[in-house]
Amino acid sequence: MYENRIRKPTLEQLIISAEQAALLFKDKMVVASSGFTKAGDSKAVLMALAERAHKDSLKITLMTGASLGYGTDGALAEAKALSLRLPFQVDPVLRKAINNGEVFFIDQHLGETANLLRANNFPKIDIAILEACLIEEDGSIIPTTSIGNSASFAALAEKIIIELNLSVPLSIQGVHDIFSTGEYPNRKEIPITKAYSKIGTSAISINPDKIAGIVITSKTDSPADIEAPDDATTAIANHLIGFFNREVARGNLTKSLLPLQAGIGKVANAVLTGFTHSDFEDLTMYSEVLQDSTFDLLDSGKLLFASGSSITVSQAYYDKIFSNFEAYKNKIVLRPQDISNAAEVIRRLGVIAMNTALECDIYGNVNSTHIGGTHMMNGIGGSGDFARNSYLSIFVTSSVAKDHKISCIVPMVSHVDHCEHDVDIIVTEQGLADLRGLAPRQRAKVIIEKCVHPQYKQQLQDYFERACLKGGQTPHLLEEAFSWHVQLKETGSMKMPIK
Amino acid sequence: MYENRIRKPTLEQLIISAEQAALLFKDKMVVASSGFTKAGDSKAVLMALAERAHKDSLKITLMTGASLGYGTDGALAEAKALSLRLPFQVDPVLRKAINNGEVFFIDQHLGETANLLRANNFPKIDIAILEACLIEEDGSIIPTTSIGNSASFAALAEKIIIELNLSVPLSIQGVHDIFSTGEYPNRKEIPITKAYSKIGTSAISINPDKIAGIVITSKTDSPADIEAPDDATTAIANHLIGFFNREVARGNLTKSLLPLQAGIGKVANAVLTGFTHSDFEDLTMYSEVLQDSTFDLLDSGKLLFASGSSITVSQAYYDKIFSNFEAYKNKIVLRPQDISNAAEVIRRLGVIAMNTALECDIYGNVNSTHIGGTHMMNGIGGSGDFARNSYLSIFVTSSVAKDHKISCIVPMVSHVDHCEHDVDIIVTEQGLADLRGLAPRQRAKVIIEKCVHPQYKQQLQDYFERACLKGGQTPHLLEEAFSWHVQLKETGSMKMPIK
Repeated sequence: MYENRIRKPTLEQLIISAEQAALLFKDKMVVASSGFTKAGDSKAVLMALAERAHKDSLKITLMTGASLGYGTDGALAEAKALSLRLPFQVDPVLRKAINNGEVFFIDQHLGETANLLRANNFPKIDIAILEACLIEEDGSIIPTTSIGNSASFAALAEKIIIELNLSVPLSIQGVHDIFSTGEYPNRKEIPITKAYSKIGTSAISINPDKIAGIVITSKTDSPADIEAPDDATTAIANHLIGFFNREVARGNLTKSLLPLQAGIGKVANAVLTGFTHSDFEDLTMYSEVLQDSTFDLLDSGKLLFASGSSITVSQAYYDKIFSNFEAYKNKIVLRPQDISNAAEVIRRLGVIAMNTALECDIYGNVNSTHIGGTHMMNGIGGSGDFARNSYLSIFVTSSVAKDHKISCIVPMVSHVDHCEHDVDIIVTEQGLADLRGLAPRQRAKVIIEKCVHPQYKQQLQDYFERACLKGGQTPHLLEEAFSWHVQLKETGSMKMPIK
Repeated sequence: MYENRIRKPTLEQLIISAEQAALLFKDKMVVASSGFTKAGDSKAVLMALAERAHKDSLKITLMTGASLGYGTDGALAEAKALSLRLPFQVDPVLRKAINNGEVFFIDQHLGETANLLRANNFPKIDIAILEACLIEEDGSIIPTTSIGNSASFAALAEKIIIELNLSVPLSIQGVHDIFSTGEYPNRKEIPITKAYSKIGTSAISINPDKIAGIVITSKTDSPADIEAPDDATTAIANHLIGFFNREVARGNLTKSLLPLQAGIGKVANAVLTGFTHSDFEDLTMYSEVLQDSTFDLLDSGKLLFASGSSITVSQAYYDKIFSNFEAYKNKIVLRPQDISNAAEVIRRLGVIAMNTALECDIYGNVNSTHIGGTHMMNGIGGSGDFARNSYLSIFVTSSVAKDHKISCIVPMVSHVDHCEHDVDIIVTEQGLADLRGLAPRQRAKVIIEKCVHPQYKQQLQDYFERACLKGGQTPHLLEEAFSWHVQLKETGSMKMPIK
């Protein structure tokens, strides 16, 4: 069954079961795993390790590309097998353990992890688990539905366990573009000048001596949860399409815009769906995750090419894409996440970045991660990599949440992930605030006018006016800057009684 | 006198007085000026404009490279001639006008302004004022002691006024390296792979038809204020030198480290002075401002090469350097600030970034700009450009200020310029906190242990412990996160009574 997928025959003797592989781990090890937003992750070994950890007490540091599928993070957290996790997660069980202080979590820009490792600013990786669909004659591997940090993990880890996944068709070979900038002080340019530039190799090179085991699997990725657009996300998408149309009309952009990046989730899907029915043409993407809507846009002919680090789609799209992968192969590329999220390339291409905020404040600062300023939701992901270096940095959010009890525009965000410097446009279902070229007090006026829900407009205006009486570049009343959050905790609502 | 400095004879007829030049400006114009940390700024025209504005009411938008010398910003603010200022300033009169809300101020990463302009995300420049020491046969100009944004201003402005400064020796020609990445969607790589890479031309090209006037001046730059190292800055420098020694000992860095960047001011000077008496060798700098201490390091032989965007030195150093410029010319380069501060190059070279914080919090977030969270000091400058993309991002501050009444390490910074993601090392005179690879709760422990002044240690530990009881990735008590700042305002001290 697996024979045509292990092309270096001597490696066949390294085939072991997931349970045997799990025995290779020791307490306090630094472990790295493939996987980026549930695509191309370890599906067997990490689960077997969680199983083992219920009996043999051991705690590891676990780093990945981004999130894992199938509740793997939750299973590891439940087994108390994690001491430190980075750089991203989305699992409710792990989230609870992080917020309880049981698991340390480094919330990291997704483009940064490989740099941190290559700079020796983090402990050495003991074992890397890498999903592959093929092992080449020289021991190098063809990854599956994501690349994430796998190329860096392969280069830096002491030992490697390969999860050879037979369910991924070999037609995927050729879609990956592995490139490394090299090591300090001799790092070189990333010669990508278009979203479709291919600059590297299709395989991740591996020193065969490092391979500690090969585990055969055949489980497909856990499917993405796709939420259909609703009134709010459709309104946000329409505001954005209108904005892009105006930019084209004033000659600032052409109908093919500039390469698009979209965060994952409902709003991103709505926006990309909005492009399907628009006048824009010959679009390109330079993004992280290729989602259902990416493939809709490709199918519609509006999108010429999409660059990302993973293919994360629903089951129906997975089946459609991989039953006919040749149709997409020349229209997409998967890159290491330190390349898909590289400041250098994002700035050079002039990416239009669209990401989701948990809350924004009147000056345009954005919280993407911390509920109530303290509790981690998922992580900053790649939003910062893109927001900081993009041609246009757009953040979207509903104006209210939880039955209008929460205003997503607040006097001061309770945690800052993106400073006002890195936020050009804020969009809610209420409207779009164009903050380009505005000073903080001007930004506040536009945000309150365009983005805030009518139920909170007066309350926010009142805060802003009273703050301005005290002066400053960025007027605030520190003693009540978080009063909305504090009241929410105490009374269940941010709505204040009218004074 | 000026004849050998205007090599296109037909341009001589454009010579006008500063007062005549001032008449070219109209109300609501967008004006750009050369000048970066007081070097190479407009010394005649902007002052004449301030003079004129006392009589003829007019308000302009003014953008520069960075700060201007000679109180020019103050004179313009006093004459009510500014409506909007960007991207940086250090003038006490202007600062007051900004904080009063009389002048809007866009506090901007210094590497961003040119990108904002080239992306058409800001109104067109009506007039640019550019200091030069020579006008070439083709109308192109040789800048003086800084480049700043002058190359972008020259390319984008409708009209140009040249301030031809006769006091700058022509031997400076050849030290500038003008390079542009081009325009979207065809921007190209910045092919700098070493601090000393020269990739461009020595002159800024100018369309002669745009030249609206040439004003002859002979005033030298206003000298930098150099403060001698004191006990605190020397202690900080020693902690840093010790850290670098340990990094070399563990094989992480060589004795030539990686290219250094240092913000301006007392601490930077102390640190660079510290290197003079160290074991390090063959150092390079990839920084913004070449200061007195840069030239000391060059003279000592420890520093091989320094790249920056300006030469900003004291009078004694100015005289020394420019009386013998040939001795330095092959050891330094001046670049446009979108190149000196380019994410792409900073990341590629692996710059070690050292910048100053106003305050830090227990999780490693840094406020570099806003006093009390509201009032602008100077601006973020280039610190963010470097902190985000560096190999190591270091922030330094005294542990206390104002007679120990202020702790510079607080529960939560009152304004976030640099998120915890972008801060690797915090140093005070008390010690050095190495935050690499640490989660927020771990960061807090190290910062409290190493950096906080003994007078505030218990108080901060108490806050942290009580916050941890409430849980979270980043534990905080929102209702008292700013209580130290509020109490400072009310009582003049952050010291709390012992409970």
